[in-house]
Amino acid sequence: MAKEKVVLAYSGGLDTSVILKWLANRGLEVICFVGDIGQHEDFDAIKKKALATGASKVYVVDLKKEFVTDFIFPALKCNALYEGRYLLGTSLARPLLSKAQIAVASKEGAKYVSHGSTGKGNDQVRFELSYFALDPKIKVIAPWKDKDFLNQFKGRDDLIAFAKKYGIPVKASVSKPYSEDENLMHISHEAGILEDPLLRPAEDVFSRTTSLQKAPDKETMLEIYFKDGIPIKVVDKTNKVTKTDPLGLFMHLNKVGSENGIGRLDMVENRYIGIKSRGVYETPGATILWTAHRDLEGLAMDREVMHIRDMLTQKFSELVYNGFWFSPEMDFLMNAFDKSQEAIDGMVKVALYKGNVMTVGRESDRKLYDQKFSSMHEEGGFNTEDSKGFISVSAIRLKAHYVALGEKDPYAWRSKKAKK
Amino acid sequence: MAKEKVVLAYSGGLDTSVILKWLANRGLEVICFVGDIGQHEDFDAIKKKALATGASKVYVVDLKKEFVTDFIFPALKCNALYEGRYLLGTSLARPLLSKAQIAVASKEGAKYVSHGSTGKGNDQVRFELSYFALDPKIKVIAPWKDKDFLNQFKGRDDLIAFAKKYGIPVKASVSKPYSEDENLMHISHEAGILEDPLLRPAEDVFSRTTSLQKAPDKETMLEIYFKDGIPIKVVDKTNKVTKTDPLGLFMHLNKVGSENGIGRLDMVENRYIGIKSRGVYETPGATILWTAHRDLEGLAMDREVMHIRDMLTQKFSELVYNGFWFSPEMDFLMNAFDKSQEAIDGMVKVALYKGNVMTVGRESDRKLYDQKFSSMHEEGGFNTEDSKGFISVSAIRLKAHYVALGEKDPYAWRSKKAKK
Amino acid sequence: MAKEKVVLAYSGGLDTSVILKWLANRGLEVICFVGDIGQHEDFDAIKKKALATGASKVYVVDLKKEFVTDFIFPALKCNALYEGRYLLGTSLARPLLSKAQIAVASKEGAKYVSHGSTGKGNDQVRFELSYFALDPKIKVIAPWKDKDFLNQFKGRDDLIAFAKKYGIPVKASVSKPYSEDENLMHISHEAGILEDPLLRPAEDVFSRTTSLQKAPDKETMLEIYFKDGIPIKVVDKTNKVTKTDPLGLFMHLNKVGSENGIGRLDMVENRYIGIKSRGVYETPGATILWTAHRDLEGLAMDREVMHIRDMLTQKFSELVYNGFWFSPEMDFLMNAFDKSQEAIDGMVKVALYKGNVMTVGRESDRKLYDQKFSSMHEEGGFNTEDSKGFISVSAIRLKAHYVALGEKDPYAWRSKKAKK
Amino acid sequence: MAKEKVVLAYSGGLDTSVILKWLANRGLEVICFVGDIGQHEDFDAIKKKALATGASKVYVVDLKKEFVTDFIFPALKCNALYEGRYLLGTSLARPLLSKAQIAVASKEGAKYVSHGSTGKGNDQVRFELSYFALDPKIKVIAPWKDKDFLNQFKGRDDLIAFAKKYGIPVKASVSKPYSEDENLMHISHEAGILEDPLLRPAEDVFSRTTSLQKAPDKETMLEIYFKDGIPIKVVDKTNKVTKTDPLGLFMHLNKVGSENGIGRLDMVENRYIGIKSRGVYETPGATILWTAHRDLEGLAMDREVMHIRDMLTQKFSELVYNGFWFSPEMDFLMNAFDKSQEAIDGMVKVALYKGNVMTVGRESDRKLYDQKFSSMHEEGGFNTEDSKGFISVSAIRLKAHYVALGEKDPYAWRSKKAKK
Repeated sequence: MAKEKVVLAYSGGLDTSVILKWLANRGLEVICFVGDIGQHEDFDAIKKKALATGASKVYVVDLKKEFVTDFIFPALKCNALYEGRYLLGTSLARPLLSKAQIAVASKEGAKYVSHGSTGKGNDQVRFELSYFALDPKIKVIAPWKDKDFLNQFKGRDDLIAFAKKYGIPVKASVSKPYSEDENLMHISHEAGILEDPLLRPAEDVFSRTTSLQKAPDKETMLEIYFKDGIPIKVVDKTNKVTKTDPLGLFMHLNKVGSENGIGRLDMVENRYIGIKSRGVYETPGATILWTAHRDLEGLAMDREVMHIRDMLTQKFSELVYNGFWFSPEMDFLMNAFDKSQEAIDGMVKVALYKGNVMTVGRESDRKLYDQKFSSMHEEGGFNTEDSKGFISVSAIRLKAHYVALGEKDPYAWRSKKAKK
Repeated sequence: MAKEKVVLAYSGGLDTSVILKWLANRGLEVICFVGDIGQHEDFDAIKKKALATGASKVYVVDLKKEFVTDFIFPALKCNALYEGRYLLGTSLARPLLSKAQIAVASKEGAKYVSHGSTGKGNDQVRFELSYFALDPKIKVIAPWKDKDFLNQFKGRDDLIAFAKKYGIPVKASVSKPYSEDENLMHISHEAGILEDPLLRPAEDVFSRTTSLQKAPDKETMLEIYFKDGIPIKVVDKTNKVTKTDPLGLFMHLNKVGSENGIGRLDMVENRYIGIKSRGVYETPGATILWTAHRDLEGLAMDREVMHIRDMLTQKFSELVYNGFWFSPEMDFLMNAFDKSQEAIDGMVKVALYKGNVMTVGRESDRKLYDQKFSSMHEEGGFNTEDSKGFISVSAIRLKAHYVALGEKDPYAWRSKKAKK
Repeated sequence: MAKEKVVLAYSGGLDTSVILKWLANRGLEVICFVGDIGQHEDFDAIKKKALATGASKVYVVDLKKEFVTDFIFPALKCNALYEGRYLLGTSLARPLLSKAQIAVASKEGAKYVSHGSTGKGNDQVRFELSYFALDPKIKVIAPWKDKDFLNQFKGRDDLIAFAKKYGIPVKASVSKPYSEDENLMHISHEAGILEDPLLRPAEDVFSRTTSLQKAPDKETMLEIYFKDGIPIKVVDKTNKVTKTDPLGLFMHLNKVGSENGIGRLDMVENRYIGIKSRGVYETPGATILWTAHRDLEGLAMDREVMHIRDMLTQKFSELVYNGFWFSPEMDFLMNAFDKSQEAIDGMVKVALYKGNVMTVGRESDRKLYDQKFSSMHEEGGFNTEDSKGFISVSAIRLKAHYVALGEKDPYAWRSKKAKK
Repeated sequence: MAKEKVVLAYSGGLDTSVILKWLANRGLEVICFVGDIGQHEDFDAIKKKALATGASKVYVVDLKKEFVTDFIFPALKCNALYEGRYLLGTSLARPLLSKAQIAVASKEGAKYVSHGSTGKGNDQVRFELSYFALDPKIKVIAPWKDKDFLNQFKGRDDLIAFAKKYGIPVKASVSKPYSEDENLMHISHEAGILEDPLLRPAEDVFSRTTSLQKAPDKETMLEIYFKDGIPIKVVDKTNKVTKTDPLGLFMHLNKVGSENGIGRLDMVENRYIGIKSRGVYETPGATILWTAHRDLEGLAMDREVMHIRDMLTQKFSELVYNGFWFSPEMDFLMNAFDKSQEAIDGMVKVALYKGNVMTVGRESDRKLYDQKFSSMHEEGGFNTEDSKGFISVSAIRLKAHYVALGEKDPYAWRSKKAKK
């Protein structure tokens, strides 16, 4: 009888190599899936290692362009930020990897998918919710939540011993005292020594961005053009470079962002799983895009649309962080955000300098802020006497409140409280 | 018969000096109110000028401490930001000035208050809504919305001619080609040449912050201590300075923020009055505080409290911007925010460097992130198998959605849309 | 020279007849616009009266179908309710009337539109905001906010005297001691004696619904079918009637709703203008539809989509009430709601009985609640052990809170407060 | 060595009796906890049965008053409704039972608590989250999620066989073909034959409310008085009864509500666990209170406070439904709602008639709607010309939108869509 197939999300590292062999030892045919989302890896070497370790096949899939157009840009449309600061670099990559992995499983007729994420983190949730959303019948093998696996591998030493036993190459280099996750959008550093929230990460923790001190002492000037809320052209005036394709322009922003020390973040965040966690992030290109996009919205978006949209942005960000990228509520929100971006067209001038992304000018065909409309005001569309009426009517409720509370200062409690 | 009294918000500038005389000419007794909210002015000179121009009395009221404790700190408690970026420096000062002006009117038994704000801006709304909220019977004279006044003064030349006629001193200096508003929290620059949103403000526009290029090439290290969400101590490790009183610590943060080029912002915002407006802001000290406070919340605040609070922050910010500081809905929100800050206690380490405010460490007595609780996890409060159940249950809805939509990819529309 | 044209929203009543003549007396060519939105009127008589009073032309436009499909149904899609209770019967009709009036003005090349709403109510806002949204250059003549008009007409007697002078027929009948507004969706009663919020309206106030006591003592059974959230068929099992066109089914629901005393409401609401107001409403058909639609959503809508949508419903309802039907934010919301209704297909069984609308059964092709999915659960998609993990993980945060607050009951304050 | 203690939530029914014995058989000392929350039971008989079945002790705790003051009234303060309809009768009782059960466990020094809820429902979540929130170290034994138990008891027959073996009395009566949960606030009916959402429940399903047909043919008139949003007096004008204590007035409202067929609801709702579920509810007294309370708010609450509060009500309702009664976010919300109720004082006249709760009059000392303020308007606080300005300013944004989109109807897409 043919073996059952499992598609394993494979990175080439120690953990997933051990998992590969462990799955094979359980009598499964292991097909490796390697998603290229912009991490710096030798994919040929990974492929060879997978085959050498017992994989029957290896799929290396280039997902970089789809990552930019289908995951980063939709998040940009609503300026997604988790807990006011985190740009969701890891959260956005996970559902894409799941989608590509499920596509392999479907093509191969595999009953199982497997991943190497641990049971205390966010990524297991993001991977598995996406698996189930895209294929409700799929079965998941998550070794780091499997009793047998956990009993067999109680620490790194057990993994290394197992690897040696089966001839799996183990890197001689000392591993970093914290863990990292890298993709086209960002690199994150967390756990290990970084779990102490008071400890400042040493400069050598940062690998994606130049230190602020070493960043150039002269601004890099960019012009970023948007259509329907999506960047369509980046003109780098300083380096005389123009990019118009999504991947190309994003990579260029990463390059100049990186050189100018853009996008570092050190924060304590709330995991979906109910635990607080300290993360250190470097997100150069997206930080530039987020800043420029919001700036253009200031010029081209209606106030009330913006204020309602902003309320939904928070919900969107939580859903992305928690792993609900593929869900009906995300369909609802994305469709809404698309509508809000229909006329977010124009250009933003951005100056990069030692960690700063400064929007210093912007223009738009959208006429919400232009001469023609201003002159309409002068013709009578607006006259200052109207403001009197506007304020009088707005004040009616406040006057009633004063009277209702007995004609003495209703707000005195605040000062008393502040003085305590 | 005694003259009717009017309390005029007086700045010593050309406009309010002309207004003073114009009010006096209408047969009113003019009492000048000058609020010291930290602007750089010679208050003695202002007082003399007011009396020379016809004021019967001048009140100069020091509001700086109250500004910090009763206006800036409450906004800090919810990390208030208008349209995601503006720290509300002007918006927060207006209701305080109104409150103090109404207090003078009450003491003097004045029937009228007057101000020099124009009819197209936000400030008129903020002033007048606060007047009415604190004294529903007060009458407002707003010359820039008064037909007679507008007919008499069609431009700056008319004001100067009037001033000369009545012996009001006019500064010889050429006025700046844009207008400014300054207080302890920030300085804003807008209008005039800055109305072109594409024009980058020249470096000499900025007066509160050192340019990034000239800022020191070495970090300033701070420790900021909070109790119930309010800063109670700032230790400047670099300059060996410690401050514990609200005004003192805020002014010190302004100083070091200013030296390090912190808090510049250039944006297009939506006025309450329905017009878009470009503003350039410098907000050094508050930018540091806002960053540190949110960072501490990451460590010390429950996730769900934070997420609900964040939703209300946006509403709060709009209300402040629109002038509803004194309103029942603000009472509702402030009371809610106070509750959320009950255990926001701890310290944040902040590094300032050329425009960057970097949170690089934090600690709190609040045990939401500590050893003891972590070890509780290990004892069984958390085990990784629980995650399987958590994810399975969370996925039920997503599986149902897939099945309900006919067992084919419900999310295909997104990629199609992105590819267009 | 040709006279300037004004298009007047004309009702045939005393007020708008006087306004017609008053406008004509000011030298304007008055074109009357009469919108048929289902009010019980003799439109031929109105037309004749308008011409007799000096109108150059009269447009009587049948808007009933558009009212149902383009105004009532979009509100139904999100179960719009103002302040939790009011179904917005008047608010929804106003922008439709404005739209049709502006279409006449555009066709006639009229520079002005005019209406007879007073200056303290909601309707003036709804009319005028819609005018301006659809034609920013239109000029509005609102006599009840015009000083000259107000000086000339200080009360009803002045209107009658003016009417008599110009031969305008005045109904002999005594007018009701409160005012009414009627359309296909509802009739409202307010003002006059109804301003006393403690006074119960006498039974003869109600004209659209049978009194509960006189309503039949036997249920009327309906089956209401929906497609994409919109009713497409009503089968009245009791009266053996089937209706499938939007207007026909809505009118049938009005009929049976009316007979069964459905849709009475007596409430105090908050006007946009800042004043509280007591309204008495009768909304028979829409009350049935609203109840049935929400019931079907319970069966066919994803939970999270519903919960996000419900949050937006409140905003939508406020915007409709306040007159922002034609606005960019409404476009944003309507587009979002359309998405949410994509699979709200199915049938709801409704029993009507003496004021009660009871949903007693429902079915849907949408498989969110069906056998097939349930059996999937049995196969392992759900097992009860998963719930343990789900709860354990959900509890982590609560446990941390307990520990963080010092290991004593963090909730004791509530009981203390309740006992006070 | 002393046995470990477990406190079991005991109902006297078959399931928890079997669980009692099963726990005892595992070597635990079983202490029974019976919470009296208003269900109709013979508590002496339950106590005797528990002791006969092997309990070492039985605590019968009267929780009725606390249920009203500490659970129902706080929900009333925000008009809590889950998914727009369900009054949360079961959801509110669960945390109270948990709290009392944990108090027994604490007093007895028990390491374990146990309950008989199944693994697919909401109640397990509500019980266990409350346990953990109030005692993070407590251990939960949930037999219906325990493999051993589930293997032993595969159906009702196994339970009966076990009961007979151990001499546990089993009621001879045929059990209902659906399950019920009853307390002071409501009775729910669900599962079994009621799982078919199209099946109308027969009249004999309803046990708490008179059928509409049999309800009196004459109104019952009530006056309900509130202070700070809490009912403090009910005057039943029809039956000449006055009640002022919380439990007494609530029970009286239950009585007259029940007699008049008030509070029936049949809906499909979304469980926290991701499954849809059909519930049939009878909630007589609370339905009256909810209606009266919201009506009074219309008169006595500021508009903006109400609109912000209403947004939070939805969140509150979800949290209650999902079992997060004891949580930091609930503390946050309850504190906010308390503030909103500070002046919700007054009286509402309510007429009950055949399922209808009609608010027909209301009054309040709160002066937001009274003569004095109205006359202030006439003095100039409000004049109709102000409305012109108010509307003009509000329209600026809409005009800009029209111009920005190219001076053609920006809203034409809606009609096109509706016509499809």
